[in-house]
Amino acid sequence: MEDNNFQVSDLGEKKLIERIIEKSKKNNQSHNFSNNFDVKEAIGDDAALINVDINFKEKNSYLVSTSDLLIEKYHFPKQMSYFQMGWKGVTVNVSDLAAMASKPLGILISLAIPSSLKLSNFDDLIDGILDACSFYNIPLIGGDTNQSEEIIISGTALGKAKKDEILSKDGFESGDLICITGKIGLAALGLEILKSEYSISTVKSFIEDDKSSNEILNLAIDAILSPIARINEGILLGNFANSATDITDGLASELHEILNLKKSNNQNNDLGMMIFEKNLPSFNEIAKISKIIKKNPLDLILHVGEDFELLFTISKDNLSKLSKSNENFNYYLIGEINNRNKVEIEYSNGAIETLSSKGFNHLK
Amino acid sequence: MEDNNFQVSDLGEKKLIERIIEKSKKNNQSHNFSNNFDVKEAIGDDAALINVDINFKEKNSYLVSTSDLLIEKYHFPKQMSYFQMGWKGVTVNVSDLAAMASKPLGILISLAIPSSLKLSNFDDLIDGILDACSFYNIPLIGGDTNQSEEIIISGTALGKAKKDEILSKDGFESGDLICITGKIGLAALGLEILKSEYSISTVKSFIEDDKSSNEILNLAIDAILSPIARINEGILLGNFANSATDITDGLASELHEILNLKKSNNQNNDLGMMIFEKNLPSFNEIAKISKIIKKNPLDLILHVGEDFELLFTISKDNLSKLSKSNENFNYYLIGEINNRNKVEIEYSNGAIETLSSKGFNHLK
Repeated sequence: MEDNNFQVSDLGEKKLIERIIEKSKKNNQSHNFSNNFDVKEAIGDDAALINVDINFKEKNSYLVSTSDLLIEKYHFPKQMSYFQMGWKGVTVNVSDLAAMASKPLGILISLAIPSSLKLSNFDDLIDGILDACSFYNIPLIGGDTNQSEEIIISGTALGKAKKDEILSKDGFESGDLICITGKIGLAALGLEILKSEYSISTVKSFIEDDKSSNEILNLAIDAILSPIARINEGILLGNFANSATDITDGLASELHEILNLKKSNNQNNDLGMMIFEKNLPSFNEIAKISKIIKKNPLDLILHVGEDFELLFTISKDNLSKLSKSNENFNYYLIGEINNRNKVEIEYSNGAIETLSSKGFNHLK
Repeated sequence: MEDNNFQVSDLGEKKLIERIIEKSKKNNQSHNFSNNFDVKEAIGDDAALINVDINFKEKNSYLVSTSDLLIEKYHFPKQMSYFQMGWKGVTVNVSDLAAMASKPLGILISLAIPSSLKLSNFDDLIDGILDACSFYNIPLIGGDTNQSEEIIISGTALGKAKKDEILSKDGFESGDLICITGKIGLAALGLEILKSEYSISTVKSFIEDDKSSNEILNLAIDAILSPIARINEGILLGNFANSATDITDGLASELHEILNLKKSNNQNNDLGMMIFEKNLPSFNEIAKISKIIKKNPLDLILHVGEDFELLFTISKDNLSKLSKSNENFNYYLIGEINNRNKVEIEYSNGAIETLSSKGFNHLK
């Protein structure tokens, strides 16, 4: 019998790995991952084997790989549960696949955990990872377990994408439209509430029985604690958009990044971007709660990120084709590519200003 | 001009990533990686794209993937340079590919570093990673950079292996021989010296001008600070051996692990292993220095690991075929598979004892 006070050090690395393998096998049994990824030997041996000729039998597919590492102190608000940490560890990696119009095939997760971690919390962490794997319909195909002072989740997601549908970051041209796949600023609002001096219940007491504000509050907390990668949207955009990236570091920062990338690959262009304040969704929705926690809603929308919505560029023609053929596809048109050689914002009052890149820059 | 006291926080994540990309591009230019891995978009976009139909044009190949995470406090002796940390981060991952008879194709490295890290040390770390990539002839194809209290290097290596040459951990049968690709215990000796109260120069003063002991001392320090993965050996073994794994946690621990794996996959077997003390290479060589630092040489050989030699099992017929066809292939025959249902060691005096699994078990 396992005591509720069992720590991971009572088992040790090898038993913990067996525990992960057992949970993962059970998870695999309740799903049929063989359609998207034929893994011959999963975790347990030195490496995972993937049946390439089955998985890539359609010609002209790329294998897509991406890595992201999360550290408790910097990436997990202290109110986040262990389950949610595991979920986020999978989501951040899968989200990078979405931004390349890639179908996720599998994920490797390397963990580091304190030896004093309660075994029940370890189980929650693994359950969060496997639950997210189920949600994105991918098997856990490998990883590593280590000791550290705090939780570290390092993932590598593998996917496949058709060569002619790949969404790089810099495929746009002048005249293209700038869109996002959902409301942004909600996760930022949630993050600021969790970081603020106010508890969620204090914020609730301020908004009283304002139903829509209560809804926004719940959405904001959900957005930061249980983010969802836009996989289906990314794959669909592969047919229509000409570039995409996920908005993890803030909208303004991502806009600067893709414009800089475009300029570094093609020095002699004067491409620029104009964002229209009036088109930014959720501005009015988050305004009331932002005021309560003394934050500027526009700052939350432009400079924080963490929403995992996709930022994409698309030609006018293709956007109308996309809307016609996929009526349920949700997007917001927020700006356009021009030839003004900078990133700008047009405020609702008509004033235009350069939009600085103030997104989150680790290590700075 | 960069001051020698520049810290990574003076640049911030985005500039550091640009720095890695620049160094990596330069590294790629001086090599021709396109033969083994056609990477369309490398680091810089959301994910790396790999041309599957070119890389796997021989039918019947698996894509092989493996992850390993290293943490400064637990995996890097304090005498290890930043360059050596980077090198080891690549080696541990590539070594797992070797153990599957896989040809390395590329690697993703996620880093976490303190914001106070000197920029020159950051550069050394990246140079170590890229130098190891060059050594193993693979491109750096992706990764992530983060902030943490200590250095963390999390890698995912991708490779390919022919389906009929894959070396799982448990392909052995009774009568097979147990071999290793090189001397073990040297890295363990080096590790114990670096961890001990004695400095390298104190140890040197004990062995004075004994030439062979001086040589062993240098080899031991090299083995722990600059380990090398046995890639070519692994690929060659794919044609002859029936199982392999790399000895990172100690010989005894690895023997128990592969035997347990075999039993879990095939419950009704009474397979066992006998290791012959007299066949263990380097016992006499490391004995003198082991005594100086008050360690038991057999313990170092059996229970520490870190050598990155391959442990493999092979039929008698195939071992003689392997030796005949590859005269330069270096190996040591150290034991055999029997039906005694346990892992045992036969000492040089003829006594037989059960060999316990005391290898390094993190989190215990």
